[in-house]
Amino acid sequence: MRILGIVVEYNPFHKGHLYHLNEARELVAPEVTIAVMSGNFVQRGEPAIVNKYARCEVALSEGVDLVLEIPAVYAIQDAGGFALGSVWTLEHLGVTDIVFGSETADLKMLETTAGVLILEPPDYKESLKAYLKDGLSFPNARKFALRDYLAREFGALSERIEEIGRSNNILGLEYITAIKLLGSNMKPGVVKRVGADDTEKVFTGEFSSATAIRQMIRSDEWNKVALSVPAKSMEILRKEIAAGRGPVFPERIQDLLVPFARATPREDLSRLYGFSEGLDARFKSCADNSTTLEEFVDCVKTKRFTRTRICRTILNAVFSIRPRLVEKSRALGPQYLRVLGFNEKGRAFLSDVKKQLSIPMITTPSLWKKLLKKSQRDGPDIDVELFKEQLFLDFRASSLYAFLCPQRSAIKGIMDFKEPVRYREE
Amino acid sequence: MRILGIVVEYNPFHKGHLYHLNEARELVAPEVTIAVMSGNFVQRGEPAIVNKYARCEVALSEGVDLVLEIPAVYAIQDAGGFALGSVWTLEHLGVTDIVFGSETADLKMLETTAGVLILEPPDYKESLKAYLKDGLSFPNARKFALRDYLAREFGALSERIEEIGRSNNILGLEYITAIKLLGSNMKPGVVKRVGADDTEKVFTGEFSSATAIRQMIRSDEWNKVALSVPAKSMEILRKEIAAGRGPVFPERIQDLLVPFARATPREDLSRLYGFSEGLDARFKSCADNSTTLEEFVDCVKTKRFTRTRICRTILNAVFSIRPRLVEKSRALGPQYLRVLGFNEKGRAFLSDVKKQLSIPMITTPSLWKKLLKKSQRDGPDIDVELFKEQLFLDFRASSLYAFLCPQRSAIKGIMDFKEPVRYREE
Repeated sequence: MRILGIVVEYNPFHKGHLYHLNEARELVAPEVTIAVMSGNFVQRGEPAIVNKYARCEVALSEGVDLVLEIPAVYAIQDAGGFALGSVWTLEHLGVTDIVFGSETADLKMLETTAGVLILEPPDYKESLKAYLKDGLSFPNARKFALRDYLAREFGALSERIEEIGRSNNILGLEYITAIKLLGSNMKPGVVKRVGADDTEKVFTGEFSSATAIRQMIRSDEWNKVALSVPAKSMEILRKEIAAGRGPVFPERIQDLLVPFARATPREDLSRLYGFSEGLDARFKSCADNSTTLEEFVDCVKTKRFTRTRICRTILNAVFSIRPRLVEKSRALGPQYLRVLGFNEKGRAFLSDVKKQLSIPMITTPSLWKKLLKKSQRDGPDIDVELFKEQLFLDFRASSLYAFLCPQRSAIKGIMDFKEPVRYREE
Repeated sequence: MRILGIVVEYNPFHKGHLYHLNEARELVAPEVTIAVMSGNFVQRGEPAIVNKYARCEVALSEGVDLVLEIPAVYAIQDAGGFALGSVWTLEHLGVTDIVFGSETADLKMLETTAGVLILEPPDYKESLKAYLKDGLSFPNARKFALRDYLAREFGALSERIEEIGRSNNILGLEYITAIKLLGSNMKPGVVKRVGADDTEKVFTGEFSSATAIRQMIRSDEWNKVALSVPAKSMEILRKEIAAGRGPVFPERIQDLLVPFARATPREDLSRLYGFSEGLDARFKSCADNSTTLEEFVDCVKTKRFTRTRICRTILNAVFSIRPRLVEKSRALGPQYLRVLGFNEKGRAFLSDVKKQLSIPMITTPSLWKKLLKKSQRDGPDIDVELFKEQLFLDFRASSLYAFLCPQRSAIKGIMDFKEPVRYREE
């Protein structure tokens, strides 16, 4: 039995996503297709443009059989943490094939590179250190160190290593690394991305990037949006916006972030995840002198602190995420499988694998206490403290997300307690 | 030499304040009049309607010779903490007389009552516990326990003890208690308050309450404001508002508070000052279901948790104030005298007493490091950690306050670093 896993954000679901989904299914010919998706906050360190239930509905309507949420502690981490949490979730479900999008679709190069990242040969490590010392951001330092190492060891690859730096290749690299780290048998596959790079910020036709589409939504260019997303995605976007639940743009967090960073003691920030290398002091002084998110990020930004790292660190601060939670999450993995929705095939699959799962499966979050008690009694054996910390972070993320919606009272309370798991009839 | 001290908030300065100031000066005939004033946040747990420099200017123009800021750690505490920090500041300056406003002007009753509060006779204590157990707020439980005790011990007073509960009598009581606790020789005096009770929320003529005046400002009834405040106060209010620095209304904090309480783990709240008796869980669930400050406070409010206590606790949360800071501040007192402004008489007075001060005097906050170094070298001997924690809280309060102004960029950075000490020529 072949089970296809894909890792997605669908922020929002567009034609490039549909292309990837269809190509991946063609490639693997799976019995079941499972998507693990970030929740209400995405890996760029931003709130998603519409909430996770809405995005799940589109995924189901476009052919995904089962949608799970990546716990927020992984979803808002760097590419490595994001990939680890995603692949670990897929591994729990017995996924046989993972297919990701890539600018190059050169699996061999990605695998060779992942090997270097895991083994960290001394030469590579030294060169990485040197680049970091020069003030480069970690992703850039790593890129250059890899380039040098691979050029030395495998001359043939040297010209193409620049490509590694492109965002989806980095993610692909991280998926492969995660598979290796977990000792998983999952088989990686790639689909060459079509259309615009995710860094492309403007409309480039049918295959515009998610970034560009969010930009079109902001500027109310709905004719362009309609060209770039499937009909169902369009319908859901429209519905969410009409209900006051979207669009949620990143700057909506500025009314919280800037005053929060002004009011919080530097020492409190320094105890949170991601505030190394003096970022705490930088946050303080930039907050004192900024009134918008843009001003704040521009003030904090340096060669070393990239925009997305800053945004993720903002979320670490806002959610009060401590290093211990992240470290434990990396070491022990997700402590539950959070189901957002399924069709009949997905439901049947879940009911088949349910008994063999080594972590509990959550379909009704309001019953988490009961579920935890049951799992303490009958297994599976999990880290109870970590289970609670991961799950509560998801709840806090949902509660904050609701406040960021254009109409603040559009979502009452924590949506996870009220929204039913999505079921799509064939 | 007689030195008059008064404790004020001037939020905003009104005719009742002027009456009190003049009566107090008549009563004491002092060489110097010193006001200690709350800074950018006041004891009701709210931002002040205009900033501390603006309010200081009015005070100087109306006859105060010297204005000092009460460190925020005292200013946003309950009546006891507020009074202790204020009286302690006045004591450092060698104030001989403190005169406060009171509904009854019965000093003897206040002193008897203060005696009970300090000695806490067993009968009184038991009855206090019983009322608290019944779910009463601390101020109410104390009022009833005092009534019972004083009725028993000093029959004559029993009919008038109800009056103790009125807000300015409670503060008066706390001033006397603070004087006794500090073993100070400061002589208390009272001026009977004129006009409206502070709980009075509407225009009641010339002597309207500060609450009522803020209400008139909110509803743009400037003719009524003009009747209720001296000309200089009116002028400054107008100037601040024109510059986008005011009026700052309490609900401006809701865009920070509600999402902050949604995003923060309950355990983090429970470690902060004031979150006893399950208030942390109450904060969380009320924040999840509120979008405005009003909704939030109404949700949290009970017989035990009064509105002002909730608002102060909100500030404890927002500023991340830990019990240790409050306890140390109560035990060791203010670690500096923060001068906001003076006239020539006030300046001369300060330069006379400067050498004998047992805590450093701050007139230029940006030079705090230098001042601290100097005091570590030459004395006075202070608790360095507490000095920094108290002062940084004042800075954080200023930085947050700036964000709450109607025009967010009206005050750039931390105003304490940019605004000069106010000097008023005679």
